[in-house]
Parts: sequence; C-alpha cells; structure tokens
Amino acid sequence: MTERLLSLCRSITDPDPLLHEKAARHLDSLTKPAGSLGRLEEIARRLYSVSGGAEPLSVAPAALFIAGGDHGVWDEQVSPHPREVTHQMMLNILAGGAASSVLARVNGMDVCVIDAGHCGSVIGHPKMFALGENKLTGNIAREAAMSEKTCERLMTGAADIVRMKARDGMKLAAIGEMGIANTTPATALFCALLGLEPQQITGPGTGLSPEGVRHKADVIARALDLHAETVEKGAPLAVLSALGGFEIAAMAGIVLGAAACRLPVLIDGFIATSAYAAALAICPAVREYAFLCTRSAEPGYAAVEQVLGERGILDLGLRLGEGTGCILAYPLFRSACAIFNGMATYAGAGVTADTIF
Amino acid sequence: MTERLLSLCRSITDPDPLLHEKAARHLDSLTKPAGSLGRLEEIARRLYSVSGGAEPLSVAPAALFIAGGDHGVWDEQVSPHPREVTHQMMLNILAGGAASSVLARVNGMDVCVIDAGHCGSVIGHPKMFALGENKLTGNIAREAAMSEKTCERLMTGAADIVRMKARDGMKLAAIGEMGIANTTPATALFCALLGLEPQQITGPGTGLSPEGVRHKADVIARALDLHAETVEKGAPLAVLSALGGFEIAAMAGIVLGAAACRLPVLIDGFIATSAYAAALAICPAVREYAFLCTRSAEPGYAAVEQVLGERGILDLGLRLGEGTGCILAYPLFRSACAIFNGMATYAGAGVTADTIF
Repeated sequence: MTERLLSLCRSITDPDPLLHEKAARHLDSLTKPAGSLGRLEEIARRLYSVSGGAEPLSVAPAALFIAGGDHGVWDEQVSPHPREVTHQMMLNILAGGAASSVLARVNGMDVCVIDAGHCGSVIGHPKMFALGENKLTGNIAREAAMSEKTCERLMTGAADIVRMKARDGMKLAAIGEMGIANTTPATALFCALLGLEPQQITGPGTGLSPEGVRHKADVIARALDLHAETVEKGAPLAVLSALGGFEIAAMAGIVLGAAACRLPVLIDGFIATSAYAAALAICPAVREYAFLCTRSAEPGYAAVEQVLGERGILDLGLRLGEGTGCILAYPLFRSACAIFNGMATYAGAGVTADTIF
Repeated sequence: MTERLLSLCRSITDPDPLLHEKAARHLDSLTKPAGSLGRLEEIARRLYSVSGGAEPLSVAPAALFIAGGDHGVWDEQVSPHPREVTHQMMLNILAGGAASSVLARVNGMDVCVIDAGHCGSVIGHPKMFALGENKLTGNIAREAAMSEKTCERLMTGAADIVRMKARDGMKLAAIGEMGIANTTPATALFCALLGLEPQQITGPGTGLSPEGVRHKADVIARALDLHAETVEKGAPLAVLSALGGFEIAAMAGIVLGAAACRLPVLIDGFIATSAYAAALAICPAVREYAFLCTRSAEPGYAAVEQVLGERGILDLGLRLGEGTGCILAYPLFRSACAIFNGMATYAGAGVTADTIF
C-alpha cells in the first residue's frame, strides 16, 4: 500500500462504545416499550456513536455515489446484456430517467455518478466525477483486473470526493453501481475474501439461465485458480486489484472515505457489498460505519451475510443495483434520527412507565 | 348484519385483473431488468389496479387512523402495563410525542386518532374522532367483548370517517392501534378466524415473561371455549363481537371503508392484522386493497402470514403498534408510484433492451 492509502486507513478508528450505551439509555426513556422499534433503534444507536454523539442526530443531506465501470470478463459470456448498456445507463442516471434517479428524487437523496473507467466516451455533467479512463478492466479469468496502483488511485480518489462532499455538509453517504457483468468479479471477490465457493454463491445476476449460471461459476473458478497465489497471500488490496472492478474499487474508496469522515455509509446489494467486503478486509474499523441496506435477490447473498455477520435491512427481492436498496432504506435512517430527536419521554408526557408485574 | 354493513360490503368489488397486466407491461418497458425491483413492482401493479388505472399513480395525501380502545380482559393479568396507559398514549399521540407522531411527520403521513371506546375522559382535539363510549369491552374470558350492534356501529362509523377523508382527497389509508392488553383479543381472533391454536401463537406482546405468556395462552383458550359455539358457527361479525376489541372493530371498518372507496389500505402489525383478518372474513373482496406492512416481532405472526398467504413488507423486529409499521413502509409506496410514473423507457432513453443470449 502507498502511504496515502495507509494514512487514510489509519485515520479510521472505532467509535466510542460508551456513546452506543448512552444512545440506548436515551431510547429507553422514550414513550414506547423498550426495544419495541427493533432495528430502527439499532440504527439510531449506531448513527449516534458513528457521529461522535452529535445532537440533534441527522442524516441529511445525503448523497448516493453510483460508480460505473466496464469489465474485461464480459468477453467470457457471463452477462446477457450488451456492454454498451453501462455507458447508456450512466447517461440515463444523469438524465434522471433511471430507477435510482427517480427513487432518489422522491426519497430526498442527491445522486452523483463516478466514472471509474468504462468503454464509453467522456460524459460531461455537473454530477459526474471522472476518476477512470476510457477502458475495460483486464479479463479476470486471464489476467489481473487492474494494477494495484490503479486500484489505490481509484480508492483514494473516491475517498477525496467523499471528503469534499462532507466539507459541503453531507451527513450520510451511500454506494451503488452500474457495470454490465459485474456480478462476476463481485462473486470472485466474495470467494477470495470470505472463503466461499463459486458453485455455492454464483447466481443469475440480471437474467442468466441455469446453464449460464453454471458457465459463470466455471469462469469464476478459473479466475480464482489463476490468482490462487494472490488469494492465498491474503493481502486484500492485491485481491481487489486481481479480481475486482474499477467501480468496485471506487465504492471501496467511498466506504473508507466516509468512515474517515465519521459518516455513516449505506451499502447496496450484491456488488456494493463486495466493495464493502474489500474495504473491511483492508481496514476492519470501517465496520461500525457501514450499514447493509438490502438482502439481494442474488441467491448467494445469504451466505455472504452469514460470513459478514450482518443482515440487510430491507428484503424486497431487489436485484437492480444502482444503489436502489440504499435509497429505499434511507427513509428508515431519517426515521431513526426523528425517533431519537423528537419523541417524548415517559416523564415529559406523563405516561406511566412502571409495569405491574 | 344490518343493511348498512351489508351495503358497505356489497360496494366492495375486486379490481379489474386486466389493469394488473397493463401495469406489468408498463413496468417491463422501463430501463431496468424486468422484475428487478422485486416487491416494489408488485406494490406498483396492485396500486394501479386498486386505483382503477389512475395516472399518474399517487398515494399522497395519506392518513393513518390510530384506533384506541380498552379491554375488559386486562383484569386477567394479560399485560404488565397499567390500563391508564391507553388514555395517556392517545394524548401523547395527539400531542406529537409518540413514535407514531414523530414518524408520521418525517414520512409525510397525516395522523388521526379514533376513540373507539376507552376508560379515560373525552379527548377534544381536531384530529380526534370519537366513535366510542367511556367504557371497556367485556372480559372475553367471561362474556362477549361487545354486542354485534356496537361492533357494526364502530365499523360503519369508521368507514364513514374514511369516506369523508377520501372526499377531501386522501389517496391512501393506514390502520394502527393503541390498547393495553390488545394482543390477547387479537390472538383470540386469529385462532377463531384462521384456525390457529393459542399455545402456538400467543406471544409476549410488549413484555410478558415466559410464565406470563403461558398464562395469557390459558386465558385465550378459556375465551375460545366460552365462545366455542359462536366460533363454530363461523359468522365473522359474531366472532369479532365476541372476541375482539373496540379498536379492532374500528380498524376493520377502516379497511372496509378504504376498499369501498377503492383506496389502498396499509395494515400494521399483530393487532391491526387481526382487524384485517376480520374484515377479510366479513368481505373477502378487501384482499386486493390491503397491504401487510410489517412482520411483527410477535412470534405467532409467521403462522398468521402463512394462513393469510401474504408476507409483511418490512422485517425490522417491530412490536410497538400505533401504525408505526405502516408509516415506515409508506415511503416504499411513494417510491413504487414514482417508479411507475417517472422512469424512462428503454426506447425513450436509448438504452439497448435486447439481450445477447
């Protein structure tokens, strides 16, 4: 690792556990049976400790960073969609017509697109950050996806974007992606980083047949064989460079950047979670800052959750990406803040707190 | 049943199934893999057919009706909370300090309270509808909760409130409740209406010990024995009157009223779902209009979902009531409308829709 990435990681520290307890005491003083808001209360406790005890607790304004990237491994016929769809959808997101654009508008999130490296021409737009080049990753079944240098550059570049947005007042970040064929590198990363097997967790992505899924699992197994030495050494940056994707590296950088700014960061489905897994392997202290937002419909996701020891907040059968799971979960984060900030206490409202037996 | 309730039920008809298909075709033309927004697309399809094909699709403004009621069966020591908490919390909800008040504000829902009959004095407030009297239900372990006449009056009265709000522009209704001890009548209703057993589905409510849960199951079994003849006859209005609660009857009326106005109605957790089950038994055509919003933390809820053939949308371990599950799910309904109304089509956005294989 370069000094720059090392210093970014060193700046990320665990939140003070006493703040977690302080938040729990406050939540128990409010006019509701203790713990009766379930995961909403867990979210409130974690937001409070992540923020360093900020009052009032706030997650607005919030920005979703959608990283776009193209994949050399597409050549192995692991996706039924033409590669140009990555570029077309980045334009559609910026034009406001994609699912993510529409959902972000109605749920009060700002959307930024990060061009992490894709095949289309440069897109000029005030909401577009260009970090990458006009090219594909290497085909992971035949070579490394990218050099470690490129990977670090994407990560630190993305972290810089978060820092800039945090200076402008952003209180919460979220990660999503667009990249035709990117369930393949994501699955390879889960196998390499979490000790899972391609046959166990490879799924249909946005629409492969069962035969296509078997072929995709074979491609992923080949990639893991080719990079077996790197995987065994276990250096997570090398693993991410060998098996990842440009947009996955950029999302990992957003996670690190948010944690360094002591901001909560929402993690979308299957592919975004692979970026989170990489960030977590590089810097375990990001854990408390990150929230898995959606149980992906990709069948391997349950195994991923089990190893990570966390369950996605929503379970709506989403398999779209673009950060849509984060956007749909975001109102729950605003709701958790509102509960923490705005509810009456038993004493204040004159509600009997004692129980009879 | 009186003519008034019969005529309300007769006015509820199944939505046109062709509208469901029309909505599905439109959703498949949008720039996302078909079906990739999972349950959000199911919600959009159902909202479209329920509305009779309204465009743009809309669920705002929305109102949550929180019905409050007190229970004679509290005397059997089935709740650890003092009975006066029902009244205190109704005041707290109206004063804006309860979880439901705070969450409704941040998620854009209007809250109305229905006094369906409780022990406290009359509460005067512009958001309060007084349908009931200053009294308890009968203790269901010893007598009927109420007469069929009272039950019908609460149902049709609540339906009238919905009709009035619909005339004022309401596009979506939701039901929640406040009533110390009301998991007991709710559980009894599930047993009587859905063929479940008290030992199987009785849970701790807002905080009973395991011993308390066993005692509560015995009380419910006694109530079911006492009213066995009514249960066997299977007339749902008689069952609701014998084993229900004032607030449960009022919520059932809201469900009927919303369906009669062709409006979607959101169903909160354990107790609200028992009101839905009663409304469904009285008028099976309400099914398409109602959306189970939350998988209650009450352990019996999974069995209830299985018999009803539907799964709650959120799974956050909520066990608060007051319609909090509906409020937290409401942004997903606004999101479903936004997707339906606002996304680009493949043709319009110049995104390649064809797949390669």
